Amino acid sequence: MNRFEEKTVSSDLLFEGKIISLRVDEVELPDGKRAKRELIDHPGAVAIIPVTDDGKIILVEQYRKALNRSIIEIPAGKIEPGEEIEVTALRELEEETGYGANQFEYVQSFATSPGFANEIIHIFVAQGLYKIDKPAAGDEDEFIELMECTIEEAEEMVLDQRIYDAKTAFAILYAKKILKD
Amino acid sequence: MNRFEEKTVSSDLLFEGKIISLRVDEVELPDGKRAKRELIDHPGAVAIIPVTDDGKIILVEQYRKALNRSIIEIPAGKIEPGEEIEVTALRELEEETGYGANQFEYVQSFATSPGFANEIIHIFVAQGLYKIDKPAAGDEDEFIELMECTIEEAEEMVLDQRIYDAKTAFAILYAKKILKD
Repeated sequence: MNRFEEKTVSSDLLFEGKIISLRVDEVELPDGKRAKRELIDHPGAVAIIPVTDDGKIILVEQYRKALNRSIIEIPAGKIEPGEEIEVTALRELEEETGYGANQFEYVQSFATSPGFANEIIHIFVAQGLYKIDKPAAGDEDEFIELMECTIEEAEEMVLDQRIYDAKTAFAILYAKKILKD
Repeated sequence: MNRFEEKTVSSDLLFEGKIISLRVDEVELPDGKRAKRELIDHPGAVAIIPVTDDGKIILVEQYRKALNRSIIEIPAGKIEPGEEIEVTALRELEEETGYGANQFEYVQSFATSPGFANEIIHIFVAQGLYKIDKPAAGDEDEFIELMECTIEEAEEMVLDQRIYDAKTAFAILYAKKILKD
């Protein structure tokens, strides 16, 4: 898929952080003209839709500094260097919820902000959940609270914007679909 | 929603671009410890799910430099300064597809990458579509191709990753739901 390709003329790395880096590329457009692209590099992430045996989904509430508020999301986390996405998914489910899963299925992957970032989120659905006795701890700068809710409760939280992110909006529609089938 | 609030201790603006800017905030965590947050500011965007009278959705293919490939998405675009989101939605639908819509309905809003960016996408569904005689042109550095497809065709494009972004993944499930109801 390289239709309307924008060839890189030059690339300027302006910031290299612990999680993201920023560069400005000059590109040649299909008509030969040039343009600048402001781009964020991100290692990618995994998100899990955990569905309990009685048809609830498990969500986590956490503060998101980028939004200056807390929101309620499906469990998710960054891929560590060299880590297989299936391992990230199991690890994040355990760290954020304390659950393991007997059924773990890959759903799909998508870019979150293709206009400026290369972050890809890989979505899994986890069923056959069981509590892990002594689950691994998550990041020490991460404060989260766990909740279980029905699809209807989740839809209410979309309406009042307590749920307010793309992967979770997708997850609710997806969970609804598999629970109906 | 300020549970687990992270208070800003200091904020360092490191890049101010045409579309995004980057800052690193030092924050105080709920336990009194400190951490750094790498944050992107973005003006926000609107995306439209255009559903034709015969139940197809209209998609646009464009090159995304951040991903180094072209992908197929629902029409979308940035909010201009001071612009109402309903105006952005109508403008982007016209510029990117050449269509107007008799029914325009707000669906929901969500952050695309709450871990590092404040970009919010506002989703609308457009029905009762009609072709505009001389539609307004879009950005001059934007090259797009239009297509109409059924939900089944869109789902195939998800599987082979021609469709590869969060808002479009959401849009397909949403369109499927309203077309079934």
